Amino acid sequence: MPAQPLKVTDLTLRDGHQSLFATRMRTDDILGIIGEMDEVGFHSMEVWGGATFDVPIRFLNEDPWDRLREMKKRAPKTPLQMLLRGQNLVGYRNYADDVVTAFVEHAADCGVDIFRVFDAVNDERNFETALKAIKSKGKHAQLAISYSLTARVMGGPVYNLDYYIEKAKKFEAMGADSFCIKDMAGIIAPNDAYNLVKALKKAIKIPIQFHSHYTSGMASMSMLKAVEAGADVVDACLAPWALRTSHPAVEPMVASLTATSRDTGLDLHQLLKLGEYFEAISPKYRDFMDTTKTAVIDTAVLEHQVPGGMISNLVSQLREAGALNRIDEVYEEIPRVRKEMGYPPLVTPTSQIVGIQAVQNVLFGRYKVISAQVKDYFYGLYGRPPMPVDPEIQKLALKGYERGETPITVRPADVLKPELEAAREATEGIAKDIGDVLTYALYPQVGLRFLKWKYGLETPPADTRARTLEDVNKEDEIIAKAKAGKLVEKGSEKLVAQASVSSPAPVTGLRHFNVHLDGKVYCVGVEATAAAAPAVAFVAPPPALAQPAAPPPPPSPVEPKPAAKQVETAKPVEAPKSVEIPAAKVEAKAAAGPEPCGEDVLAPMPGVVLRYEVKVGDKVKSGDTVVVLEAMKMAIDLPSPANGTVAAIKFAVGDRVSRDDVLAIIAA
Amino acid sequence: MPAQPLKVTDLTLRDGHQSLFATRMRTDDILGIIGEMDEVGFHSMEVWGGATFDVPIRFLNEDPWDRLREMKKRAPKTPLQMLLRGQNLVGYRNYADDVVTAFVEHAADCGVDIFRVFDAVNDERNFETALKAIKSKGKHAQLAISYSLTARVMGGPVYNLDYYIEKAKKFEAMGADSFCIKDMAGIIAPNDAYNLVKALKKAIKIPIQFHSHYTSGMASMSMLKAVEAGADVVDACLAPWALRTSHPAVEPMVASLTATSRDTGLDLHQLLKLGEYFEAISPKYRDFMDTTKTAVIDTAVLEHQVPGGMISNLVSQLREAGALNRIDEVYEEIPRVRKEMGYPPLVTPTSQIVGIQAVQNVLFGRYKVISAQVKDYFYGLYGRPPMPVDPEIQKLALKGYERGETPITVRPADVLKPELEAAREATEGIAKDIGDVLTYALYPQVGLRFLKWKYGLETPPADTRARTLEDVNKEDEIIAKAKAGKLVEKGSEKLVAQASVSSPAPVTGLRHFNVHLDGKVYCVGVEATAAAAPAVAFVAPPPALAQPAAPPPPPSPVEPKPAAKQVETAKPVEAPKSVEIPAAKVEAKAAAGPEPCGEDVLAPMPGVVLRYEVKVGDKVKSGDTVVVLEAMKMAIDLPSPANGTVAAIKFAVGDRVSRDDVLAIIAA
Repeated sequence: MPAQPLKVTDLTLRDGHQSLFATRMRTDDILGIIGEMDEVGFHSMEVWGGATFDVPIRFLNEDPWDRLREMKKRAPKTPLQMLLRGQNLVGYRNYADDVVTAFVEHAADCGVDIFRVFDAVNDERNFETALKAIKSKGKHAQLAISYSLTARVMGGPVYNLDYYIEKAKKFEAMGADSFCIKDMAGIIAPNDAYNLVKALKKAIKIPIQFHSHYTSGMASMSMLKAVEAGADVVDACLAPWALRTSHPAVEPMVASLTATSRDTGLDLHQLLKLGEYFEAISPKYRDFMDTTKTAVIDTAVLEHQVPGGMISNLVSQLREAGALNRIDEVYEEIPRVRKEMGYPPLVTPTSQIVGIQAVQNVLFGRYKVISAQVKDYFYGLYGRPPMPVDPEIQKLALKGYERGETPITVRPADVLKPELEAAREATEGIAKDIGDVLTYALYPQVGLRFLKWKYGLETPPADTRARTLEDVNKEDEIIAKAKAGKLVEKGSEKLVAQASVSSPAPVTGLRHFNVHLDGKVYCVGVEATAAAAPAVAFVAPPPALAQPAAPPPPPSPVEPKPAAKQVETAKPVEAPKSVEIPAAKVEAKAAAGPEPCGEDVLAPMPGVVLRYEVKVGDKVKSGDTVVVLEAMKMAIDLPSPANGTVAAIKFAVGDRVSRDDVLAIIAA
Repeated sequence: MPAQPLKVTDLTLRDGHQSLFATRMRTDDILGIIGEMDEVGFHSMEVWGGATFDVPIRFLNEDPWDRLREMKKRAPKTPLQMLLRGQNLVGYRNYADDVVTAFVEHAADCGVDIFRVFDAVNDERNFETALKAIKSKGKHAQLAISYSLTARVMGGPVYNLDYYIEKAKKFEAMGADSFCIKDMAGIIAPNDAYNLVKALKKAIKIPIQFHSHYTSGMASMSMLKAVEAGADVVDACLAPWALRTSHPAVEPMVASLTATSRDTGLDLHQLLKLGEYFEAISPKYRDFMDTTKTAVIDTAVLEHQVPGGMISNLVSQLREAGALNRIDEVYEEIPRVRKEMGYPPLVTPTSQIVGIQAVQNVLFGRYKVISAQVKDYFYGLYGRPPMPVDPEIQKLALKGYERGETPITVRPADVLKPELEAAREATEGIAKDIGDVLTYALYPQVGLRFLKWKYGLETPPADTRARTLEDVNKEDEIIAKAKAGKLVEKGSEKLVAQASVSSPAPVTGLRHFNVHLDGKVYCVGVEATAAAAPAVAFVAPPPALAQPAAPPPPPSPVEPKPAAKQVETAKPVEAPKSVEIPAAKVEAKAAAGPEPCGEDVLAPMPGVVLRYEVKVGDKVKSGDTVVVLEAMKMAIDLPSPANGTVAAIKFAVGDRVSRDDVLAIIAA
């Protein structure tokens, strides 16, 4: 082994909780320990970037810039590190150069010493603007390669040793201060780690840092071999927030290297004390931890190289779509989509882009639904992937694409107009500094909402409040009582259930069918219930045929599924009449307006309405985009199912919708 | 790396569930998968031994011999392996040679192919009888060394490389078919693993197997280095039951070695399928898993080399004793006790013996309380430890020892009389075969109870029944409802609480004090409640001073702590009277006899009453053993606190008692 001490970057305050607790760690909890962590002698602490920008403004009502400044105050000794997604910064799309420059400069001013920059497709052109800004601030620029594979071990036509060496040389030539092997999926095998680091040490002069998620269970072995091969710095987390989809624990690594030539010199006792702090606060965040499996590691990634986070996204998408049984088809579809997209590494955001397209291909037919991001990707907005994309799929994706049907070959940000000025204008009167403007520039909707919370213009919702250990203890007591059989269902619940029949909550998820029966046409609203088959929730003839309504059926004494109790309020224009449909549950009620009939534009998965491309009365052709849904962090264009006229717009921009909610109705 | 494929022993069905689920895996669940596991091509499967004998007869109402036979039937291809604790077999004391021989022969007959034999103090004389029996049956004898340290890395005056090499040579010379490095605490560092295996490969010719618990987080790294050094076989578990205090997962090991000279040749896909089975059944056993910590690994072991299981025993003992804050004193005491005992490895049962003595030394003063096992140990019944014991402590421990005050130097079993014939006699009319006799011979009390269950002579208690996934799902539903705030305390509970005042459950955990008040002496029974401070549960003057009882206080409308509702039934001899003690809760009730007053013999920790050495009316001197308690698998002599007469015996043999329960009362 080489004879210099191994340096350690602690990731607990960024990737640790991002990996295990959906990035929910609170600033207060960070500030409660970062001063002690500052005493350890870590090479650096990664404390910012990645999702630690998005999550605080979206869920925690905390200012990420304030957090950064406060951390810097309490940890003045250890270099603070951030993860920067290249031109994507801390978001999920390329931002214009002016935003990138302003962001990096402000991050440096607020306390970032080391910028770890990566790009999802390893296109070094996406580093250029950030790199220039980092250098202009005199900070450390670490350029990271997204480690990827097309088979179980390194090699093959794409991700072979030459690929990585060439990239590393390019990064070094660009001015990188250090190089990072970023194995976000935890797929680097010990032997490959050894060979790669060994070759890199010969090829480049800058320090080499090793980063591998624990997901598959290989990371500590691979890290040890990387260290033997001469890696200068390794990434780890304190034990309580290590392993699983996080990183190797620092304590066993320190112990393992004790009395070797790579002894870290870190004090084990000090690390154990820090671990106790994280152990103590963990219960606050336990609801964000994935406890669905007993296994600590996700061995499936060993078989198909799909990162753990991506798998859980796929599973949750499929579960929401009621198609979890098709997971194997999705696993088979992923390599196809990936090949068609030029073998991008599977890392945020390309892992989501590939994953969601694979799911859509399985659910709706290949490329029948194409997300806006996939269109952007094929246009070239994400950069140049390692291999050429499939020209046929590219043509299909760019048909009618707003920016043009001919893909670009220049640096993606070259086609983006400056964005900062518009952000300044949009936040005039609210934003107090460039940090506020950047918050908006990165996340216009969520950012603006946060700024309103921050400056008291809107009341933040209750669920942004921090959970305390007292909350956890109370919950534990309740759970213990429940397990001991000491609790019963609330006695008042039956009364509530009965009351809901006479004053029902409005139903937004009805699908409408024209039912032809005995020569008459009835417009039938159908609502999904907890049971597999849809139940008919209300039946009324279309306006022209309507007859007086039958009285509502008496409430059932046993109503096991509250979801089935919701019934839509419909007041037919004239002479409404209830009609019994065979093998379907029929209910009726009073109030509200009639539903137009026609074909529904359904939400294929849960999401938020980004915008409607049409308004009521517009004529549309089959395939025209009616509404754009944000789902799984992707913008998805939902097309009209038929030629016709927009008869109804059912939601407002920003509304959260469930799968199969009717977003609009197209009348013939 | 050497060029032969690495062989893998799967431990899931023995050490996997013993490490994670308190050995609770059911025979049905084993038989549901062992046939498929038989197809993998494992070198062997460890499926029996260790705690898989004790637990089934104690908690599961399952016959371990039947399990073994059934496993063999369904897995005829892969050698089945058991863990044998040398002369301790699958128990916690040395058994006589005739029992050892019969046990090994019967295990071989029922299906064991490979016997892994270890001894807690690495005294090879404790292998002799078992080894002879294994050989006589033509089976594979693997002799294992208990890996131990006195510092963070291998070396120092005791556990240095020479120690291990000398032992390995001795084992080989004795006739071992293979040698195992058994790192039960997970403390072997990667470098030490490499150096040790490398040296062993030169020193001995028999195959070398590597076994290291994951506890500290180093095991996969150490295993990889052992493999590089030429280890022939490694121990692992399927991922769902791997890591934590269990073992490295087999899947990432298989993936890591893919396309290397040590490629295992095992099929990853097949392993993933097996993992799904264990994932699916895990919820049944989840209550036995330690979920008190967020950390997957126990880094504390890195600091002081105390195995994880031993730590949790210490913690639970201290918690029960209300002295968890003295854990650091115990950590400091352990190396002292260990040195005085000749540096035994910390493995079952020596880890318990050292640990409990360290706890007792901290709680009651050094060697003020000495367990029967510690006396046996100093007498020589466990064998010869690596270093000489402290002669002063030895003398103290053997003072008045029943076998004699002069320690033995012969093989421990040489002083044991044959035991099998007595076991045959004791089980005459019940035992149907030698297996039944052995079950009794190993565990007389628990074994006999099991045999009665087995043959329908006694009804097994309800808690021996298997938990189903339906049970788990129901519990999950209840917990989800409880968390959602949908449950309330049972409405009937208040009635129950009130009823319990007029017909209270008998209280067994009262302590008695003579309280001097206004010149009178009252004998006061004090009961611990859920709150920190003890509540006075009943107050009555001693017989001579008794006056008429006051009526019981009315039941409180709000009774948050049911534990505090129990009140002892006491009927003073004459003129009883309730007296209000300041700052104490006073209750009174009707029925039963008076409590004698005097000094209490208290249970220092929870346990089971093994036997009383005295009867009511006996005269005792301070320090005389009054009662022997079985706690933490140890027999603990509890001395009289004073000279006097045994006034009361409060429990029966076999009763389970809590900390501070009064076991006997000594009157002056």
